[in-house]
Amino acid sequence: MSDRFEVRLAGTGGQGMILAGIILAEAAALGADKNVVQSQSYGPEARGGASKAEVIISDEQIDYPKVLQADLLLAMSQEACDKYGRDVKPQGWLVVDESHVKRVPPHACVIRVPITQIAEEQIGRIITANIIGLGVIVGLTNIVPHQAIIQAVQNRVPPGTKDINTQALKAGLNMFQDTRREQYGC
Amino acid sequence: MSDRFEVRLAGTGGQGMILAGIILAEAAALGADKNVVQSQSYGPEARGGASKAEVIISDEQIDYPKVLQADLLLAMSQEACDKYGRDVKPQGWLVVDESHVKRVPPHACVIRVPITQIAEEQIGRIITANIIGLGVIVGLTNIVPHQAIIQAVQNRVPPGTKDINTQALKAGLNMFQDTRREQYGC
Repeated sequence: MSDRFEVRLAGTGGQGMILAGIILAEAAALGADKNVVQSQSYGPEARGGASKAEVIISDEQIDYPKVLQADLLLAMSQEACDKYGRDVKPQGWLVVDESHVKRVPPHACVIRVPITQIAEEQIGRIITANIIGLGVIVGLTNIVPHQAIIQAVQNRVPPGTKDINTQALKAGLNMFQDTRREQYGC
Repeated sequence: MSDRFEVRLAGTGGQGMILAGIILAEAAALGADKNVVQSQSYGPEARGGASKAEVIISDEQIDYPKVLQADLLLAMSQEACDKYGRDVKPQGWLVVDESHVKRVPPHACVIRVPITQIAEEQIGRIITANIIGLGVIVGLTNIVPHQAIIQAVQNRVPPGTKDINTQALKAGLNMFQDTRREQYGC
């Protein structure tokens, strides 16, 4: 991966995109010894229920802390995909929750995963969809070590939900473990 | 307040500075209809246990999303005060948790509140210190409407802790309600 890796996590309010961003940032800082800036912007559009978190991971000091063109977008809603789906690098990853996202812009590397459906049917808790999504993107890209993201999830999820969220994370992590990046044209 | 208001919340890991930043940002975006960017940076220093969250609140679009010189610093640890205490505007607020902060740099407007002690003795839960701190800074500055910060706290704290966190917030909010800003030279 190039020195600077820009991740955007986008969905609707209540899907836990901000928590997912914080967990990914902590995993990168503590587990991979990287410089990280994690942010969320709110504006008038926040009233519409959209939610977006950004994570910039770099070996160098991060001078400009916003995503310009994402190396990876996780879109958990159709609105998020419509809004940010075109701001992904040509060779970047566009990962969508196909439980909610039906239309995807033309892109070389689209990964469709029924994240919310897995949360509901396999984990039994729809609220874990954000953590499954985290697992999927880390499993695909290895931007942080698996052990680091597991630790960060356990540090940050509410007490009493560590086990189910760890289970959700691992479901995501294992989904693409044996996949070669080239298979997807990314 | 000028158009752009820069808040830095700093303490040690586990004091909940990031959650406090997210809550303040949501209150400003949803309750005050402002543009907001909320961020945290992690680097090698994150290993040391320091924790810092930043919130920029503006009527205009926010082009540069990092704190340059804070309009308000909430320092919940001595290390945080040592590190960021001099990066406060001359007429800005330096609010310290005097349960942990004993040395403060020379500054026109220092507010000392025994935040952690109040959390422990008055609220009965030391973990609510971050929310008391939020109440203190909003009560002092009115950067967001009180109703908005109450709502944001209730949206974001873990289930089962809404009541105690609301109580903590109000303890902070009421502490300086009748104080005139001029009294502190700010």
